[in-house]
Amino acid sequence: MPVDPEAAIEVTAFSSVPPIARGLVRDLRVRWVLEELGRPYRTRLYDRMPGGVPAPDFVIPDHPFSQVPGLVDGEVAMFESGAICLRLAEDDERLMPRDEPQRARTLSWAFAALSSIEPFVMHHQIVTAFDRDKPGAADYAPQTAARLRRRLEQLGAALGDKEWLCDRFTVADIVMVHVLLPGSVAEAGMPANLSAYVARGKARPAYQRAFDAQIADFTRQEESA
Amino acid sequence: MPVDPEAAIEVTAFSSVPPIARGLVRDLRVRWVLEELGRPYRTRLYDRMPGGVPAPDFVIPDHPFSQVPGLVDGEVAMFESGAICLRLAEDDERLMPRDEPQRARTLSWAFAALSSIEPFVMHHQIVTAFDRDKPGAADYAPQTAARLRRRLEQLGAALGDKEWLCDRFTVADIVMVHVLLPGSVAEAGMPANLSAYVARGKARPAYQRAFDAQIADFTRQEESA
Repeated sequence: MPVDPEAAIEVTAFSSVPPIARGLVRDLRVRWVLEELGRPYRTRLYDRMPGGVPAPDFVIPDHPFSQVPGLVDGEVAMFESGAICLRLAEDDERLMPRDEPQRARTLSWAFAALSSIEPFVMHHQIVTAFDRDKPGAADYAPQTAARLRRRLEQLGAALGDKEWLCDRFTVADIVMVHVLLPGSVAEAGMPANLSAYVARGKARPAYQRAFDAQIADFTRQEESA
Repeated sequence: MPVDPEAAIEVTAFSSVPPIARGLVRDLRVRWVLEELGRPYRTRLYDRMPGGVPAPDFVIPDHPFSQVPGLVDGEVAMFESGAICLRLAEDDERLMPRDEPQRARTLSWAFAALSSIEPFVMHHQIVTAFDRDKPGAADYAPQTAARLRRRLEQLGAALGDKEWLCDRFTVADIVMVHVLLPGSVAEAGMPANLSAYVARGKARPAYQRAFDAQIADFTRQEESA
């Protein structure tokens, strides 16, 4: 496994999250990219739930929104999972085609995952989970479900019977599969070919290793608490 | 002006939108990048509101979500404004620093605009405009306003007294300024330094030319209708 305390690349992650969020925290995308490329990394863990309760004044230094993941690699310091994944992948043909039309298509699909799918996943999650008990949320939820379902239908139609979004597996699939992972996405109504696509992504050994590594960091913290 | 019917680069745009959306359609980001770089482009216009009414079966060929902008440049065909802006800017030091830590920071901020700010702008717009008359929307709206306001505060704190997000103007500022343009963002509560930042962006001659070009495409279509 690429997790190595001596590695040059440092990835920030949480040391604990609610059980429902396991595997869904966005450092998983970065870990997955690093696993596909076999590049070692170490983690720096932040506890945003000391004692099991979200800390109201939780801050991650050097991150404008106090989120994970961040990445430090020598003089380079980054935030935003999409930016980190794209930069790690950009020079490696295993995740980013060199052929220019295919590279441009890979960029398009990576941004589509983040800008045209994920906002609708987030909106539905916020309304049905975080804001569940807020005024209007229950009555409003069918709208966020319908918008998300429409996007999933369009995405399924675009994928068709292809195995991956581009001619082969790319960094765009890492981001898209992870965006589609929450249970609320499947519940909103996922076309069958899209469910199969997500399953293909999760079946990759690099995904499994990334998932195990994220869970192991939670476990380690809980044991030492 | 770079708009040139003989140009190699083609950008897709709408030929008409409701007055409130003028300047806000995302092809403006791509036009702005092209204007900063002095690169000529032609437009291909789609009418999603024939006769002034949104067409229910509106489709843009080769775009999975039937949105604008798209870009065609020889064999390259792209969608997603973020992907297009980043690819156009990536090899040009005027919008993308060559210094690696600064380049990584520019990527981080460009993705932050799209993934950490724009979704909250969109959620608030959807709840207060598109879904205004839907069940629960009016009661729920204070939540989307509060989430957006929190992000704007964090962004304002990160910007501080800097002129631009990085050491100088970059493609990240083009995306961020455009994300912050809707009136609903200012109404949600924008820190004073962020308002000044948006004003600086809008004062750039390249922004003005891009804005005028988008409006001109609307006008041309209306005259010929």
